[in-house]
Parts: sequence; structure tokens; C-alpha cells
Amino acid sequence: MINVAVIGAGYWGPNLIRNFTSCPKTQLVAVCDKDADRLAKVLAPYPGVDAVGDVDALLARDDIEAVAIATPVSTHAPIGKAALEAGKHLLIEKPLAASVREAEELVALADSKNRTLMVDHTFIYSPPVRKIKDIIDSGEIGELYYIDSVRINLGLFQHDINVIWDLAPHDLSILDYLVGRLPRSLAAFGTCHTNNHNEIEDVAHLNLDFGNGFMASFHVNWLSPVKVRSFIIGGSRKGIVYNDLEPAEKVKVYDRGITINDDPEHRRGVLVGYRTGDVWSPHINSGEPLQTMVRHFAECIREQKPSLTDGRAGLRVVRMLEAAQRSIKAQGGRITL
Amino acid sequence: MINVAVIGAGYWGPNLIRNFTSCPKTQLVAVCDKDADRLAKVLAPYPGVDAVGDVDALLARDDIEAVAIATPVSTHAPIGKAALEAGKHLLIEKPLAASVREAEELVALADSKNRTLMVDHTFIYSPPVRKIKDIIDSGEIGELYYIDSVRINLGLFQHDINVIWDLAPHDLSILDYLVGRLPRSLAAFGTCHTNNHNEIEDVAHLNLDFGNGFMASFHVNWLSPVKVRSFIIGGSRKGIVYNDLEPAEKVKVYDRGITINDDPEHRRGVLVGYRTGDVWSPHINSGEPLQTMVRHFAECIREQKPSLTDGRAGLRVVRMLEAAQRSIKAQGGRITL
Amino acid sequence: MINVAVIGAGYWGPNLIRNFTSCPKTQLVAVCDKDADRLAKVLAPYPGVDAVGDVDALLARDDIEAVAIATPVSTHAPIGKAALEAGKHLLIEKPLAASVREAEELVALADSKNRTLMVDHTFIYSPPVRKIKDIIDSGEIGELYYIDSVRINLGLFQHDINVIWDLAPHDLSILDYLVGRLPRSLAAFGTCHTNNHNEIEDVAHLNLDFGNGFMASFHVNWLSPVKVRSFIIGGSRKGIVYNDLEPAEKVKVYDRGITINDDPEHRRGVLVGYRTGDVWSPHINSGEPLQTMVRHFAECIREQKPSLTDGRAGLRVVRMLEAAQRSIKAQGGRITL
Amino acid sequence: MINVAVIGAGYWGPNLIRNFTSCPKTQLVAVCDKDADRLAKVLAPYPGVDAVGDVDALLARDDIEAVAIATPVSTHAPIGKAALEAGKHLLIEKPLAASVREAEELVALADSKNRTLMVDHTFIYSPPVRKIKDIIDSGEIGELYYIDSVRINLGLFQHDINVIWDLAPHDLSILDYLVGRLPRSLAAFGTCHTNNHNEIEDVAHLNLDFGNGFMASFHVNWLSPVKVRSFIIGGSRKGIVYNDLEPAEKVKVYDRGITINDDPEHRRGVLVGYRTGDVWSPHINSGEPLQTMVRHFAECIREQKPSLTDGRAGLRVVRMLEAAQRSIKAQGGRITL
Repeated sequence: MINVAVIGAGYWGPNLIRNFTSCPKTQLVAVCDKDADRLAKVLAPYPGVDAVGDVDALLARDDIEAVAIATPVSTHAPIGKAALEAGKHLLIEKPLAASVREAEELVALADSKNRTLMVDHTFIYSPPVRKIKDIIDSGEIGELYYIDSVRINLGLFQHDINVIWDLAPHDLSILDYLVGRLPRSLAAFGTCHTNNHNEIEDVAHLNLDFGNGFMASFHVNWLSPVKVRSFIIGGSRKGIVYNDLEPAEKVKVYDRGITINDDPEHRRGVLVGYRTGDVWSPHINSGEPLQTMVRHFAECIREQKPSLTDGRAGLRVVRMLEAAQRSIKAQGGRITL
Repeated sequence: MINVAVIGAGYWGPNLIRNFTSCPKTQLVAVCDKDADRLAKVLAPYPGVDAVGDVDALLARDDIEAVAIATPVSTHAPIGKAALEAGKHLLIEKPLAASVREAEELVALADSKNRTLMVDHTFIYSPPVRKIKDIIDSGEIGELYYIDSVRINLGLFQHDINVIWDLAPHDLSILDYLVGRLPRSLAAFGTCHTNNHNEIEDVAHLNLDFGNGFMASFHVNWLSPVKVRSFIIGGSRKGIVYNDLEPAEKVKVYDRGITINDDPEHRRGVLVGYRTGDVWSPHINSGEPLQTMVRHFAECIREQKPSLTDGRAGLRVVRMLEAAQRSIKAQGGRITL
Repeated sequence: MINVAVIGAGYWGPNLIRNFTSCPKTQLVAVCDKDADRLAKVLAPYPGVDAVGDVDALLARDDIEAVAIATPVSTHAPIGKAALEAGKHLLIEKPLAASVREAEELVALADSKNRTLMVDHTFIYSPPVRKIKDIIDSGEIGELYYIDSVRINLGLFQHDINVIWDLAPHDLSILDYLVGRLPRSLAAFGTCHTNNHNEIEDVAHLNLDFGNGFMASFHVNWLSPVKVRSFIIGGSRKGIVYNDLEPAEKVKVYDRGITINDDPEHRRGVLVGYRTGDVWSPHINSGEPLQTMVRHFAECIREQKPSLTDGRAGLRVVRMLEAAQRSIKAQGGRITL
Repeated sequence: MINVAVIGAGYWGPNLIRNFTSCPKTQLVAVCDKDADRLAKVLAPYPGVDAVGDVDALLARDDIEAVAIATPVSTHAPIGKAALEAGKHLLIEKPLAASVREAEELVALADSKNRTLMVDHTFIYSPPVRKIKDIIDSGEIGELYYIDSVRINLGLFQHDINVIWDLAPHDLSILDYLVGRLPRSLAAFGTCHTNNHNEIEDVAHLNLDFGNGFMASFHVNWLSPVKVRSFIIGGSRKGIVYNDLEPAEKVKVYDRGITINDDPEHRRGVLVGYRTGDVWSPHINSGEPLQTMVRHFAECIREQKPSLTDGRAGLRVVRMLEAAQRSIKAQGGRITL
């Protein structure tokens, strides 16, 4: 059992609290938030968990081995560094930090203190993403041609970070997990709308170039009339469609071939049709990603093994986010990574 | 009745032939193609229509008032100019021409010869696009925030033009019709894949900036495992989703508002939900767009009125295509229009 | 605050426990189950709630005003009667009892003891069913022509009751709520399959005749490859489709008219088409039905008002279930109600 | 080449005309209809085909080997018998005849005259139904447990036959093809609605009992707000879902097992989930069923081989229709076949 504390009882904190509580490898001992009312409300079902108002007081406690940070992004680095300095293992909500420099400092500090540093890239612990990773690694879809993701939300606007920092960490962490390397360069576009004098983008597109014809594109959007979670992976042999909102068939694998053919009748047939091969939708286990993530965090600490989503993975995602941020302010100018 | 000839009996020609034949305002008198076998096959059901092998011979005929060109894009301008010089009214398959210069020449020549020049931007004559235009013009959705289109196809590869010149004319002509003006600037990304030594892009993204926060994005793709025709229009008051593959509800109008709210419970509610207002899917007439287009062509000639998709609309689309082509070769460099 | 106890900690019990705990009008004081291990597991997150092994001991407690029964159907009546005799208000899981006779006894006893008797027909407290009720009562869809429900499940087999007693209470209670009267007669068909020597039907169809051309049909099935929750309501003016698995548009209202027309072209047009009018999908609130139900139970007790799903509603549903049971054993023979 | 004539140029006739014209094994020489205007309109694109107003005159022609009848059901038998008497091979639109007696007479007469008698059960020639037949015959889905079909249409009302005679022939012919034998007994329910003084049912349910737990159910409906074509086949090992309106995945095969398990957590898991195994959607060829049917008709005549949908198949379908008709008028009374 690892004794854990959660810092931040806002939007995401309760999810961590619930999962640390139900995980057989962790014991939640305290939760820290400046807002005492919020803290009392969130902790009501957990009478055995301490409510702590001050981060320093929390970090000073010897009975806490590990800390999970679910506060606004701008505070990840300062709180995270204090926690590492206090000798705590560390789980940080995505994205790891608000800048590459901060993320690098966290990684270096965790190394020097020999502590586990892990980012909550939740999707890496979800059964559909695991299944897709297996399929790609098996070689079944062939060479990667492109990845295209659409992650668009109903109209919920945040005022501290833009839509890229809010939503793209999901896609970039999945991409990083599936591909295992950074793109060569990146360009991003975005716009800001009504009632928004802070120049916070609410609609954005990212374009990542991995070289050799492999390109990844992401559309993130806070102002969509419909919710979409679509991830298409095109390969030289097969294609994968991952629709996270589809309850029964989240992952589909499509046989297909590319046709180069000038015959008008052939062209008409392909254009009118909807399919060129079989479709297979593998059974996906129903485990909760956050539960898997929390257990993995405990195991990484106890067994001193690297995490699937360690500080370096978090740093790679922040590197792409920061580049996107620079590109978007340069109206899509290409940034080399 | 307008006496019409079709030049080109390949992939699209038979559609024009069928529609000119069934239109009460046009009489198809001849079809021209260099491939005599193809021509014989295509004309088998139409014993009264002349098969002509030579364009010049066709254009020399006095009984032909108007000509429709459905040949490869590179030949649109030379054949089109010859037809205008011969005094014919002209319908040209999309895109109007292979370059802005060629398109400008066609527009200028049609003006000087006082002939109707029309482009077959078929979607402008489709009931769903007409309905969307009405809704936008009524002010119901408010100010335009963004347009996002995904037009991706099963693996059919062409070797003369890239995926932008093949598919984006549909989206750009719809955009031009709905918005009525050119974007300020444009950037495009694309990649080429296996078996393709001609540097013909098969996956591409376009990003158009109209200023004042209004951005349009297009994803066109020949290598998709699934066929998608999705068009999302975000407005300040409402949003529209147009799914051309949905048989029963092609156009949906979504009530929604944007929420700026820091309460974690509120945020959770919106994120977990799928809707924030009513949805309305208007009844859409079922008329065939090509039939409407062909009849409109005949009426523009007879009544000497401008076409909805005249040479200038075709030129605007070619202007965007050419800019996209330049941007894509400059790896997404922004092109001012 | 009403002090409540739950009897039965099996499949459904934990849902009641969770909702009684979070409802501001109820206080969960005890849960009773013969299986001490199961009880301990279920009550782990609720340290303040008593675990009780014996029903009689539970019912003897003066601090418990109301009891909710979530045990197998065959025990509803004996436990329920004991609870009423002990002066408790009573919530019983659907179906109310295993026979009309038992249900009538419960209703009569609750009347004579002047206690609230309510059945957990959960769907009556769900926002989509409420919205449908409002639409029907407004007259918008006109006269009711038919109701057709498909409620089919993945292969989960129970060995105590058949598929009608398991699934049809949902549909019959919705029907009863929407229509407000019993059908004139009823017929049912069903079959039993492999590994089933108890003659427990796993696939069944019900057909209810309300007279004047209004018919309701239900398909319930434990052996389906796909999960379906579809409810179609045909009216003289409009139709409603309620798909409980559709996240964004659970309820849709269709304009349509009936066409009597011999013209072949007209017939072709209607047959090929998918729509004859507008579709409207109203926004549906996202309240949890069980929470609404539990609060309603507390209000009915405190305000001594009748419940929407009182004993008489439960009795009507049992009356239809028992008739269906008799019909199914008579191979579809019609039973008059 | 077989010289063919079509009798009846109403709703379905033009489809036969088009397919006989394009089939390389048939030559359409004449079409017969009493309505000269309709006939002229339908034959406009086919200048080489004779328009004939009188059936007797048509049947007297020696140049016609085979006749296809697409007239109202009540006339199938008299015209069909006259055609067989005149020595013609015969294709009859579904259903074969308006009664078992008439259908038996047609079968007997075709036998005695040694002519091909075939019914246009079009779906038997459709690629999805063929694929399903292959899958069932391969034993992949195991023993048949149930078949459930929903075929419901937008509001188009006919005044000569009821919804069972109009729509159920499709389902009953598919059932007959897949199962290869008649049910033991059958029951049917239906209702009539507004403006319908002829007691013509517009909504109906059929229930067919094949013994040994295998049951088939059909819902046919003219008054639905939505169009549905769903066919579910439950087997002891796997299940098939056939959705004829789904463009890309018409046929899906579901792995699944039946679970008998009392553990509440297990039950919760299955109930909440949407899947218990893999899903496979085989590629389906895109051939037009009517073209395959017409070619098969020509081959049966030329090669004197039995048709897949011969008179006896047509008779079996009429036998079920007639029994359904008797049952529906007896309010669901079971009819033994």
C-alpha cells in the first residue's frame, strides 16, 4: 500500500480521490485544497481522509509517500517541484507543466531525487488505445500513413488555457504512445471568438509532420454543436477507426487497398460504394482507465520501474503543446521540434 | 430547347448525358470523345445522339448552341476557349481550369463573346446546401465562427491531379456559395504515399482565414478506411451539421450557447452531456442536383441571366486551389489571396 | 428526513443504497441481507449504515419509517406484507409481486394500514419518458395508433424468472404511464433454449389490444447479439421514436402524414425516401431517474400524497405480466383482461 | 437470348423493363398495359420495344418465349394461367398469387406444361442475403434460436392489399430461403386505422413457430415515422444482424455466449456493457439483385433447371400469407400449417 495525497479538489480531483480510494494498492490519506467548502463537500463520503488547506503542511507530513496534483496547469511545476523536494513520488494531471522549461526541471528533479514522476495521460490506460497499440505493433496495418483526430466539444469555455492546452494533450499523448517519437515539425491554427478578450483560442487545428509521408492532424474545438471523438489511422495495408463515443464498437479495423485505375466504371464503383473489404471490431475489455493508471502509479513506485507515461512522455507532449502555441500566434508558421 | 453537346464520355460525362437527355429544356445532339469504343458504349441507350470523335468538328456544327466539357482538368481551358471562340455557351466540369490564369482567360473571353460560362459546382444545386444557405441568410445561426469539412474517400487514387484538386472544389464551392467572399489567406498541408513518384498528394488539410475570427478548415483524403462527408458550421447562436451520407437527416440545426463557468460541477455536467438544446432537422426536398443544374444552365442561356455558379465563382475556387497548391509545396506556408 | 432501510444487497440494492444516501430527504440507516460477506462489501463505503442479517429484526426497529425491497420477485409479497404489518412505508422493486393475488393483497394491506406503497418503475422518473408523456398529453401526435417496443439484451440468462417478468415490467410500466388504462386483451409468445430445463422463456413477444385500432407490441429478448432499446409511438398526426441508448437524441418527434395515392411515381418517391417532414429532438434534462424516484418516495410519505407509481400501477403491470404468462403457456392464446 | 414481355407498367414494371433490357441473356420485345399513356411514358427511352394494350394479343405472339407479370396480386393467377396455357415461361411478381388455391393451380399448370415458373422474390438474389445463407449453412452460428425482422415504412397506404401481403413476402421469402421449411404454425395480429373502411391492416405482427424452440417474428408497418429494415438471427453460437439500410456494414456477425450466472457484479457488467465478443462485418458484393434475378430466370429457362425461387417457393410464401390473413381476422388465433 502506498499512502497518497491529492492536491486540488476541483474538476478532476474527485476522480483521483475515488480511484485512489478503491485501488487495493493505494491508501488515500489526505486531500488538499484552499477552498475549505469545496474540500468538505468532496470529502463527505470519505470520513477517514484528512482535509488539508495548506500545501506546505501537506508536503511536510511523513506519512505521505506520493502526491497527485490536480490543480490548474500554471501551478503544476511549482507544486510539483516542492513535492519532489519533499521527497514525494509524483503524479501530475495532464499536461505535465505550462512550459518546456518547467517540464524539463520537473524531469531533472525527479531523476536527481530518484522519485517516480508520472503524468496522468489517462487514455494510455484505456482498453481501446491499448488494443490499437497492439494492432499497430503487430504490423497488421502496415506502414503508418496518417493519423487524424477530431476531438470537439459542446460549448464549454475555459478562461485560463486555450483549447489546445485543454484538449490536445489527450491526442498528443495517444499519438506519442502509438508512434513513440516526436514529429519533425508542427504547425497550428486557431481562432478566438466573442466575449473573449484574452486571446484564448477556442477552435484549433494542429498539423504534425513526421517525415516520410507520415502526417498527423488534430482538430480540437470548444464550440461544436456536436460532441465528436474520432481517431482515424491510415496504414499501407489497413486502416483503424477509433470512435470513443461508440458504445459497442469503439475500434474497427478495415481491410482496404489503394486502387490506381483509370477505368471510369471502376472509378464509379469505388466512389459509389462504402467498403472495399471486411471490417473487424475486436472485443474491448471494459476496465476503467483511471483505475488502471492509479494501480500502475503504485506499482511503478513500489517496483521502481519506469511508467508508461513518465516525465519524459509528459515532456514530449508539452514540447508539442508549446510549439503549437508558438505556431498559432505566428498564424500557422511551421515550428521545427 | 437548347441544343447541347457533351465533350468527354469518361467518368462524369454519362451523368451529364443522362441529365441533358431528360431535361425538358435541353436537347442532347452530340457527344464527343476520342475513344470510339467508350463513346459507342456510353451512347448505346441514346440512338438519336451523334457520336463525334473530333472536338473541332463538333464545335464547327451550327446546330449546337451549348457545349458541356467533362474532360481532364488540364484540357478545360484549351477546349473551353475554342468552344467560346466558336460562339458556344459553355458548361465546364469543376474545377473551371488548371490555373488562375487560364480561368481568368475563360472568364474574359466569355464576357467579350457575350456567352454564358458556367461551372458544374453540383453541390450548389443540391437541396441540403440550398437549405443551409437559407438558414445562414436568415440570421438564425448568428455570426459565422468556423466551418469545418471532412470529405474523405475509400482508397481510389488518381494520377493526374492531387486530392485537393479532385475533392476540395466541392467544399470550396459550397464555402464560396455560403460565405460569398474569398478568405484573406490560406495554408495547406499534404502528403504523398507509396507507389506515388509523381508527388501527388493523397491526404491534405486546408486552413482558410476570413478574418474576425472566422476560419474554415477542410480535410480531403483518398486513403480513408471510411467514407465521410461531414460539414460543421459553428455560429454565435446556433450550429449546423450537414452529413451528406445520412439518408434521413442530412441537415441538423443545434441550439446551443457557450458557457463560461468555473464551477467544477457545471463543467462536469457539460462535459458528460451530449446536448445543450433542441435539435431540428428540416425536411429536405429530394430533387437531383444535376437535373437542377442542367435546367439552370438552359435558363441562364435563354434568359441571358447570370448563373449561380458562373465563371467568376469558378475563378474564385481556382484561386483558392492554386493558392493551396503553392502552400502545400511550401509545407504549409501561408498564402495571401 | 425519512429514515429508510434497504432489504436485499444483490444486483439492484446498491443502486438504492447509493440514492437513498445522496438524497437530502432520506437517511439510510440500515441494509439487510442474509449474505454477510456481500453485505459487508456493499456497505464498505458507508460506515454509518447498519448491516442487518435478519428481516424480522430490521422490521422491529422503531427508527425505521420506510423500507425498500430489492429481493427476488417471489419474496416481494411475504416481505412486503411483513413490512406493512410492522407499519413501514414500502418501496418495492419492479415487478410489485409474483402474482395478481399477491399484488392485490399488498395494495389492500397498504390501504388498510394507511401506508405509502410504491413500486420502483424507474423509467417513469426518467426525463425522456416524462417528455414523451408531455408530448402525448399535449395532443401533438394525435390519436394513438400503435406502440412498438424492442428491449433486447446481450446473452445474460436468469434462472428464477423468464424474460417477460425480467424485462417487460419496464415497457408495461411505461405503457401504463403513457396510456393510463389496461388493454382489453393480450397475447404472448415465447421460446426456451439450450441448457434450460426449467421452461424459462428467453425470447418473447407480447401483443396488447386496446381497442379502436390501438395495439401495443413488445419484443423482449435475453439472447440478442445487440442491445436495443427502441420505443416507437405512432399517432394520427405525428410519430415519436425513443431510443434510450442514443446519447444525444433520445427522443425524436417526426412530422408525417399518411398517403393514399395510386400514382406509381408518387409511390416510388415515398418508398425510396426516408422522410416526409421535419424532425425535432427536444432537449432532455439529465436528471438521474433513481434519484428522482427516491425523492418522490420521501415526498409521498411526508405529504401523504399518491405516488405516480403506486401499488395500483404496480398491480396493473402484474396483471399484464400474469396474463402474458398464461398466454405464453397457451401458445399465444388471447387472454381478456 | 430469351425474348421476354412484361405485363404491367405500374410501380414495379419499369424495374423489370430496365433489367430485361440490360441483361445480356434476355431481349425485351414488348410491354403490355391497359393504360396507354402510362405505357408510352414508361417506354419512351426504349424505342425498340412494342407497346401492347391487350394481354391476349400479347400472349398470342409467337416471338415471345417468356412473360413477366407485374400487375396487382389479384390478377396474377388469371394472367399467369393464360400465359402458361399459351406456352410461355413465367416470372411473377411477389406474392405468387392471392390464395393458396390459385398458387397451387399455377404450380400444377407449369408442371404439366413443362414451363419455368418463377417468383420475383428479389431479396433471394441480393448479396447480403446470399452471404447470410452461406454463414448459416457453414454452421458458424450454430443452431437457429430465433429470427426477428422489422420492416417498417413511412406512411404510404395501399388500398388493395394489407401490409402483410405488401411487405411480409420479402421477409417470408428470406425466411424460407434461409430455413428451407415451413413453420408448424403461425399467428398474426394487426390493426386498421383512420380513413380505412376496408379493414385493411396497416400495422401487423407475425409469429411463426418452427418447433424445438425456433421462432420467427415479423413486424410490418406502413405507418412508421422511420424506415427500418432490420433482421436479427440468433443462434446457439453466434448472432447475425442484417440492416439493409446501413450502407457500409449491412451484415454483422457477433460472437457471443449466453451466461448463466448469479453473481450481482457479473450481471451488472453484462447489463452495462454492449458487447461480449468480436464483431465481424464481411465484405458484401454490390451486384444488383434484380439483374441477378433476371439472368437466373433466363438461365433456368435455357438450361431447364429449377429456380431458387420457383413456384413451390412462391406457394410456400402464399401459404404463410394466407394463414396470417386467417389468423389476423381471428385476432391472433394460431393456424397450423
